[in-house]
Amino acid sequence: MTSKKIRPGRLLKAPESFLDPQFIAEVKQHGFDETRRAFLRKSFLAASAALTAAPLGEALAAPAQGDPDILNLPPWTTTLGKPVASRPYGSPAKYEMNLVRRESPGLASVSQASVAFTPLQGMFGIITASGLHYERHHQGWEEIDPSRHRLMINGLVKRPRVYTMDDLMRLPSVSRIHFLECGANSAMEWGNVAVPTVQYTHGMLSGSEFTGVLLSTLLEDAGFDRKRGQYLLAEGADGSSMTRTLPMERVLDDCLVAYGMNGEMLRPENGYPLRLVAPGIQGVSWVKWLRRLEVGDKPWNAKDETSQYADLMPDGMQRQYATIQEAKSVITSPSGGQKLIDKGFYNVTGLAWTGRGKVKRVDVSFDGGINWHAARLEQPVLPKALTRFNIDWVWNGAPAILQSRVIDDTGFVQPTYTQLREVRGTRSVYHNNAIQSWKVAESGEVSNVQV
Amino acid sequence: MTSKKIRPGRLLKAPESFLDPQFIAEVKQHGFDETRRAFLRKSFLAASAALTAAPLGEALAAPAQGDPDILNLPPWTTTLGKPVASRPYGSPAKYEMNLVRRESPGLASVSQASVAFTPLQGMFGIITASGLHYERHHQGWEEIDPSRHRLMINGLVKRPRVYTMDDLMRLPSVSRIHFLECGANSAMEWGNVAVPTVQYTHGMLSGSEFTGVLLSTLLEDAGFDRKRGQYLLAEGADGSSMTRTLPMERVLDDCLVAYGMNGEMLRPENGYPLRLVAPGIQGVSWVKWLRRLEVGDKPWNAKDETSQYADLMPDGMQRQYATIQEAKSVITSPSGGQKLIDKGFYNVTGLAWTGRGKVKRVDVSFDGGINWHAARLEQPVLPKALTRFNIDWVWNGAPAILQSRVIDDTGFVQPTYTQLREVRGTRSVYHNNAIQSWKVAESGEVSNVQV
Repeated sequence: MTSKKIRPGRLLKAPESFLDPQFIAEVKQHGFDETRRAFLRKSFLAASAALTAAPLGEALAAPAQGDPDILNLPPWTTTLGKPVASRPYGSPAKYEMNLVRRESPGLASVSQASVAFTPLQGMFGIITASGLHYERHHQGWEEIDPSRHRLMINGLVKRPRVYTMDDLMRLPSVSRIHFLECGANSAMEWGNVAVPTVQYTHGMLSGSEFTGVLLSTLLEDAGFDRKRGQYLLAEGADGSSMTRTLPMERVLDDCLVAYGMNGEMLRPENGYPLRLVAPGIQGVSWVKWLRRLEVGDKPWNAKDETSQYADLMPDGMQRQYATIQEAKSVITSPSGGQKLIDKGFYNVTGLAWTGRGKVKRVDVSFDGGINWHAARLEQPVLPKALTRFNIDWVWNGAPAILQSRVIDDTGFVQPTYTQLREVRGTRSVYHNNAIQSWKVAESGEVSNVQV
Repeated sequence: MTSKKIRPGRLLKAPESFLDPQFIAEVKQHGFDETRRAFLRKSFLAASAALTAAPLGEALAAPAQGDPDILNLPPWTTTLGKPVASRPYGSPAKYEMNLVRRESPGLASVSQASVAFTPLQGMFGIITASGLHYERHHQGWEEIDPSRHRLMINGLVKRPRVYTMDDLMRLPSVSRIHFLECGANSAMEWGNVAVPTVQYTHGMLSGSEFTGVLLSTLLEDAGFDRKRGQYLLAEGADGSSMTRTLPMERVLDDCLVAYGMNGEMLRPENGYPLRLVAPGIQGVSWVKWLRRLEVGDKPWNAKDETSQYADLMPDGMQRQYATIQEAKSVITSPSGGQKLIDKGFYNVTGLAWTGRGKVKRVDVSFDGGINWHAARLEQPVLPKALTRFNIDWVWNGAPAILQSRVIDDTGFVQPTYTQLREVRGTRSVYHNNAIQSWKVAESGEVSNVQV
């Protein structure tokens, strides 16, 4: 803290450079404004002559406004600008209009039972912009009137409950950062390369800070039967009435009944006003537009647990209730469909996550898995949340194959496609957590490959 | 993982309840659909008779669609819903349209040199929804063409640089969660209660995950003079050419030159495409639309460091370069302008933060500071980031005064207004971190008071 003895109201002394004798002489001769402009122009151009990087001239290419002696400055530097609260609720810059979620053309015959993928290739950090959160619906989405929405808790409970949103939002609240991944993320890639970009290979993945009531708080409020209540059913209020069984032991510690996402209420496409947040568990169980929780003593085998979300194994058996999303990672940039403009330095970036706990390390290979290098993990590394990794790379112009491989804190190592198919075959739909490969050609074009 | 021996293609065995002999008999008599409906209606009504909580009937009040025997279900349960990617970039629910940032009426004579406040009263967690991030501009805001934007680094450097956005986004990247608070947050309250709601008393506060290049990386790239380069100047490209001195020792470790905010590019109102992120330092120094960094050996005493952002002390001295935002907290709900509907349980929630490091604890008082109770801190507690606190409260209907008080990990205790004014007088504008009091009347109405 600097404190100067100054009489109230007096400005502090001007810096010495403005008392340069030459400057003072010029002011006397030409007047203050003209001298200042000349002074600045001289300094600016002198500096630009010394510059070694990108063309400065482009920034000055805008036509001058008014006085031709004024430096060519862009309009945003010379104009008043827009008022505060021009947009009471803001939006991204118009220049970012290509960064949107997209349905994969032809993926589904009915767009209400389809997917809109998050554009991971253009995103940063571990928080997904809410407007870009992926969507997966089975019978479309609607804007639910929160005053009419109810949450029922019934089954093996002493005190069946029906809560309004007002009720729920008065209860003890928690906030947690978690990833959400659909069990069908990367589904297309089981047999072979199917889609070209990371948006489509991995875009059923997002991360948010969720706020709500702990599931345990609600179950205790309802007096659930701890001994017999081994399973929880979660049911949604949408047209598909999504209904899922969850094993009680998996959800009692860290599940939330959430209303908040990244500081505000959930978005309608993400379950407004209420959804289940089941950390580490596949997305379908994070029932949106949550209307009912039932405590029971055996699985319900609902329609979305039998005809779907079960894995067909090589020996003809069904693997049911896989539940936990296993450790997985992907390089989000450079990634399929992008093009490296020139050789040289790049920050290679991506995401890693695990439903079992924390990411322990991420290794990156530039030669298709022969040599591995430890990537930097951005802090904090949180349980059952996205982890952002970054690593330096100097591209020498030769073909390369980029991969990332995560190890989580249980010691689980992300498998290659070869390893995964040995266990699971090639005809699964769900739970594909194989290592992703991106090929960089000499042209700089990046494409999806499997090695 | 449960594995059942099932021939491929066969559904799993139906749960026993559906093999109830009475059910089977009814199916034979009435057909499956009718039986199922009757079965569900019976169970549902039986359950609702046992309910002790809020009126279930309201949820069923919607007129029935079609078959009068069908349970009265809301339209979103019985209709197809909207397709995925209806909104390639999503928005909040229409029911949330009142949660917006607002300019305080009459605060400024020119709305380009004004403030739009974040509606803290309706928000959660430590991440601020980007569309609700507060605004503080001195000459309005514009959407800058990122292809024309440049960052210059000059002054006491061996290699002056001019970077394009493409250049910057290839450099090693980091992601960090930090709070941003204007030095003038709570300015109106120095003399007495001035504004009614937490949006206006504390709303120049937001928290985000920022992504960008470490300042140190850029300064090293430019070869800055470590010995003589004791000060950094940051200059913006907006009409106000915001220019700020920062002491090098404060910024070299954790400042970012950031392009990303909450997973996507900065918003135009928040400095798109580039801003300085100076963790823990007052908001004005987080120069938006950052175009130049200069390394120097003494402060620049720019216009926004002399005529503004200095504190007038009781003895007539100016306190300059206060820089660090000291520990501060506020209860965001219940807060001024809200009304408690009835007695009973409430989750009291708020935010705490400190520019010195981490929040260590937050205490809450319900009786104007006589008794204090430790609040829960949501995890993770991060350095120079918002911390969300929550605490249980049972309101008995009597008048109450709610306060929160933070202690940070340097041991600094948030002061009362009395304590703060003893040191700083009553005629400051900036750096007001006093304890905030909210009075709850018997009517349940909450108002801003100073005790």
